[in-house]
Amino acid sequence: MKFSFSNPTRIEFGQGQIAAIETLIPKNQRVLVLYGGGSIKNNGVYDQVSKALEGYEWEEFAGVEPNPTVETLDKAVAQVKSSKVDFILAVGGGSVIDGAKYVAASAKYDGDGWDILTGKHTVDAALPIGAILTLPATGSESNGGSVISKKATQQKLPFMSPFVYPKFAVLDPDVIKSLPQRQVVNGLVDAFVHVCEQYLTFPQHAPVQDGYAETLLKTLIALGKDVDAPDDAWRANLMWSANQALNGLIGAGVVHDWATHMIGHELTALYGVDHARSLAIVQPSLLRVQFDSKQQKLTQMGKNVFGFEDGEDTARKTIDAIEAFYQSLSVDTQLTDYQGDKDTAISKILSQLKNHNMVALGEEKAITLEVSEKILQEAVADK
Amino acid sequence: MKFSFSNPTRIEFGQGQIAAIETLIPKNQRVLVLYGGGSIKNNGVYDQVSKALEGYEWEEFAGVEPNPTVETLDKAVAQVKSSKVDFILAVGGGSVIDGAKYVAASAKYDGDGWDILTGKHTVDAALPIGAILTLPATGSESNGGSVISKKATQQKLPFMSPFVYPKFAVLDPDVIKSLPQRQVVNGLVDAFVHVCEQYLTFPQHAPVQDGYAETLLKTLIALGKDVDAPDDAWRANLMWSANQALNGLIGAGVVHDWATHMIGHELTALYGVDHARSLAIVQPSLLRVQFDSKQQKLTQMGKNVFGFEDGEDTARKTIDAIEAFYQSLSVDTQLTDYQGDKDTAISKILSQLKNHNMVALGEEKAITLEVSEKILQEAVADK
Repeated sequence: MKFSFSNPTRIEFGQGQIAAIETLIPKNQRVLVLYGGGSIKNNGVYDQVSKALEGYEWEEFAGVEPNPTVETLDKAVAQVKSSKVDFILAVGGGSVIDGAKYVAASAKYDGDGWDILTGKHTVDAALPIGAILTLPATGSESNGGSVISKKATQQKLPFMSPFVYPKFAVLDPDVIKSLPQRQVVNGLVDAFVHVCEQYLTFPQHAPVQDGYAETLLKTLIALGKDVDAPDDAWRANLMWSANQALNGLIGAGVVHDWATHMIGHELTALYGVDHARSLAIVQPSLLRVQFDSKQQKLTQMGKNVFGFEDGEDTARKTIDAIEAFYQSLSVDTQLTDYQGDKDTAISKILSQLKNHNMVALGEEKAITLEVSEKILQEAVADK
Repeated sequence: MKFSFSNPTRIEFGQGQIAAIETLIPKNQRVLVLYGGGSIKNNGVYDQVSKALEGYEWEEFAGVEPNPTVETLDKAVAQVKSSKVDFILAVGGGSVIDGAKYVAASAKYDGDGWDILTGKHTVDAALPIGAILTLPATGSESNGGSVISKKATQQKLPFMSPFVYPKFAVLDPDVIKSLPQRQVVNGLVDAFVHVCEQYLTFPQHAPVQDGYAETLLKTLIALGKDVDAPDDAWRANLMWSANQALNGLIGAGVVHDWATHMIGHELTALYGVDHARSLAIVQPSLLRVQFDSKQQKLTQMGKNVFGFEDGEDTARKTIDAIEAFYQSLSVDTQLTDYQGDKDTAISKILSQLKNHNMVALGEEKAITLEVSEKILQEAVADK
């Protein structure tokens, strides 16, 4: 076990904590408020932010879309450069915060921002970012990762940098109250799969990391049962679980997978499937196809998370239970909404995976295009 | 649930990581290496540090004692001021790291450093600190707390400040190899009680924090069973558990107690009891005396940590199990080594508690001197 772990993001957790941002952003900073489609104007968050920013010079950039694109974000970069913005305040979910990271890094780079995604440019500086989370899901509010899409090429690529960790993240569980149920469920599923990507991998004799992961999985499953009747504690626990699922802690010193994410990204890019739902479609099939390498940890998950007896079929029952969990939340576990026939859909997805060099995925880099095809055969429904 | 959480300490975990300090301390800094009784000269750590510091200007201060005293540390403060030291590298266990925090804060204060402990001075600056942990126990390597003693008055007091978080902590599990068994066991017990102080408190509907705490408790109990045959994984898991036990995470948003620590400190100050052993002496008695307010969480601990069935006597069985855990490690759960008779010992401890204003301890501030007396009646053995 060898790792570096550092998470410099300050968390301000609780109802009414948006007001704290005035203690967190230096008064002399020119602030850009970055947000999405305007839901923050309806749920009171925009007003709370405006109030907290009284006394600051600030401006805004609206319209960051789900699965944020360089096409949109490059306009924000231009605004940041021309207005000499010092600080980026992302107000939104993972898409807005991911977008803020791209803007913050691009603002300190003279070339084409997309170079950051292709790996041509390694981020070496970024404007400081603060995050006001409005949708618990991605954990982006306290990590250094970001996923950005490019419409022109139907690409969706990640980048990571220590320079883009938010300085602070405000987690006010009340923001969930105004969210559509579909988004809350997406967040829950997204967090669940984030944990799995760092947990359902080769065992490492790491009982602390495993126990933390199992805690989050059990918490998310319990929350799923009460998804129709959330209270203050429900909202707080979803928000904290989703944060913990991807802040680096549970993944410190253990093997990661992320193949579900990489294949899922293509479903989103091609068919506009919600990110979380793309994961629910890919993951059960992937676990079945990769059964041999996943069996040991699936058995552990079955016992410690689902409370199954230890037995020969525990691992298979665990995959079924994961799938049933998604279905209990009315989340599809097969891709049903695509044009044309099944084989055409699969070959389009495979062709995108090939174009994006996603040809050796997963914890063992063993998911070649052939393996992805097997996974997709299970994941794409006949129509 | 409302909290702020921030932990800026970078963890460098793994065998051989001491070499990483040259990437973590700026080259132009004048470094003071602070250490204890010289064990680091026998176990190779001093040599590894010296090698990693090649190219730096550095000096050393040796002789920080267990339960570090202002009497000793003020000499280090004088050295830091006269040598214009920029960076303090603590190489040791909790005592050395706690001492480094006192030195780092006192170096930026013109008055008497003890003012920091009495609350007369609030720390508003400190020299940067790095920690090379040689004894996993206190979690001091990645928190902002410190406990310092004053020989002259037999006091042992804590202070906390965001300014004294180490910039980095190197956790190399190999350092445990050369530790005496007694110290390893002390670390294990210390970490266990740290978790309990943040977990055995009024329930908060906080399944993430509870599950993390239960993970650490279960891990420490499992490690306790193999204390005579540690391997690489054993050492790594002890080190990571002890760190996680007191880095702020499991305690975020939940009620804390710490009465066991406050009473235990007096046993150490008066009778020189090892810190961890003072906790093992006080805690079971405290749980029995405070049974009514602890029952609900003790029952949860019994079920989730010890695997007991839910029942009327689960909470009492849990206290017995905690006590049996300490005894299985050959750690006394009663104070046996004191001068004079039992009543005299108890009245001396109570008198110290009174002198130090420890008259309303615990999660509900309900542990008055009268309650402490009841606890001590159980905790001090007849001779």
